[in-house]
Amino acid sequence: MKKILLLSTGGTIASASGEDGLVPKLTGEQMIKLIPELEGLCEIDCKEIMNLDSTNVQPEEWVNIAREAFEGLKEYDGIVITHGTDTMAYSSSALSFMLRNLNKPVIFTGSQLPIEHPQTDGKRNILDAFKVAVSGLAGVYIVFDGKIIKGVRSSKVRTQGFDAFKSINYPYIGRVENGEVIIEHNVDKVPEGQIELDDKLDPRVLLLKLTPGFLPEVIPAVLKLGFRGLIIEGFGLGGVPNFRRNIIPEIEKALKEGIAVVVTTQCLLDGSDLTVYEVGVKALKAGVIPAYDMTTETIVTKLMWALGHTYKLEEVRKIMMTNYAGEFSIIKNH
Amino acid sequence: MKKILLLSTGGTIASASGEDGLVPKLTGEQMIKLIPELEGLCEIDCKEIMNLDSTNVQPEEWVNIAREAFEGLKEYDGIVITHGTDTMAYSSSALSFMLRNLNKPVIFTGSQLPIEHPQTDGKRNILDAFKVAVSGLAGVYIVFDGKIIKGVRSSKVRTQGFDAFKSINYPYIGRVENGEVIIEHNVDKVPEGQIELDDKLDPRVLLLKLTPGFLPEVIPAVLKLGFRGLIIEGFGLGGVPNFRRNIIPEIEKALKEGIAVVVTTQCLLDGSDLTVYEVGVKALKAGVIPAYDMTTETIVTKLMWALGHTYKLEEVRKIMMTNYAGEFSIIKNH
Repeated sequence: MKKILLLSTGGTIASASGEDGLVPKLTGEQMIKLIPELEGLCEIDCKEIMNLDSTNVQPEEWVNIAREAFEGLKEYDGIVITHGTDTMAYSSSALSFMLRNLNKPVIFTGSQLPIEHPQTDGKRNILDAFKVAVSGLAGVYIVFDGKIIKGVRSSKVRTQGFDAFKSINYPYIGRVENGEVIIEHNVDKVPEGQIELDDKLDPRVLLLKLTPGFLPEVIPAVLKLGFRGLIIEGFGLGGVPNFRRNIIPEIEKALKEGIAVVVTTQCLLDGSDLTVYEVGVKALKAGVIPAYDMTTETIVTKLMWALGHTYKLEEVRKIMMTNYAGEFSIIKNH
Repeated sequence: MKKILLLSTGGTIASASGEDGLVPKLTGEQMIKLIPELEGLCEIDCKEIMNLDSTNVQPEEWVNIAREAFEGLKEYDGIVITHGTDTMAYSSSALSFMLRNLNKPVIFTGSQLPIEHPQTDGKRNILDAFKVAVSGLAGVYIVFDGKIIKGVRSSKVRTQGFDAFKSINYPYIGRVENGEVIIEHNVDKVPEGQIELDDKLDPRVLLLKLTPGFLPEVIPAVLKLGFRGLIIEGFGLGGVPNFRRNIIPEIEKALKEGIAVVVTTQCLLDGSDLTVYEVGVKALKAGVIPAYDMTTETIVTKLMWALGHTYKLEEVRKIMMTNYAGEFSIIKNH
């Protein structure tokens, strides 16, 4: 029988009422006891590594979770991580980069309603997550509402509905239906060699989502705070204004100061392409790193991970444009 | 026969190749000539009011477009506005607030491929827009890929697919199918009285989309630039971190300085609700304005419009929490 480690981190699934609304309280053992269907599926050990609303999960927690998962994988056949939904897609992306040669499953799950709520989706999601964990799939995934989603391609799109996560610009890996794990799209080879932990991150990354009238002066004002990476969510395919409030000169200055500038889109689907319109080409000519069709969650975590390894812009660019975990699909020659 | 005015503003639909990629070039007349099916539908006059990639459309352009639409509505039965897709949802939201008592149609459209492209969606979209404009619907709408979407509820979700716009947290008003306008959900009463132009905007609004590790010091650093409104796209239902990098004290300081702070979600669907989790309640207790299920495009334009009328926080709050154009649906008593 396979041995799976449950790492609990908090989130809605573990929440109960507090003075100011819901706060995480339940341990992994307490949650597991509520799901009798888990019996006989695998051996389960539980470890609570934090108990946070995932709005409060930060790069320091990603490192903590990655280390616990790495240690656990020495002994266990797979890891299930219960986690708040709010930043689960950031954490699943972060772990996708920090756990190299990952030849075992690391499955994130959580819920939209607390596990003790009568209509909870938490029991089903935990059960599904364990079923995927024993299925032998390798890599980091989110299992939620019956969907199996690649960790680097997931995004939270609903704040209330049970179908909270969507696979962005990539097929769903599969689903869990009537208790069966059905794999529909798994083209990744299981990596060879030992699992490695590469947990160097530099959190000094800022994202700026443009809105019409965005003031270019915001860029130098925030860069004074010491950021090493700047992600701009432009319009449409990644357009950056060059008229009246022209942002291009501030991008050029940032690049000259050695700041890695990545330009992506604020649209959920289809990704960015800076080669089509003048408003993209000018940014590309200035020297920004294109984000292709990566999710914002992945761009943020990958840039922090890249900057944990080097500040040399050409090396950061090379890391960002290398496909480590299937995080982008469109490759064009610029 | 009805008289419709086409206001052209640029965008992909009017674009042709330039030195650095696609740039808007065609006039309204040139576009109309490519759509023979328009003949006999209505009388059409054209006016080019700008020719911009909509990445470059800013609050000053919204005022310009609103004024031209207002003037046009004195003489015409409706307005069709061709516009780039990148910021169309911002412009349609802005006009929804600036044109009060709007008892005639103002229809935005555009395309994902230039109108001269062999596979263009531009001809169909313009034709559909004119059909909706003569249908008698009152208010601001986006007509795109056969969908009729309320201006304040629209968001661009695809950077490449023809189905670029989605109706957010609200039903589609209808569709145009086989050349027929089908209205499926139109609960709004046509306003009485004269159309009024209320084009006072203060563009000094900044949006900050949180990512894990967001540095609270960013808030005072940008507020020094003179912003009067701050929109925070939090996590999930609108959660704002209060651990390690605690943002709440900076929100409190901003509010004390008279800055209007609105908290919303970075998730596309289901909207925000700050009353459920501690990470929302603490922001609400600090005094932020909740955004309910308004789109970010609507929050940005509405806050600029509110600040064009008053800087008194309680009045800004009252404006933001008043439903002017069906822009939010969830009303809770806080």
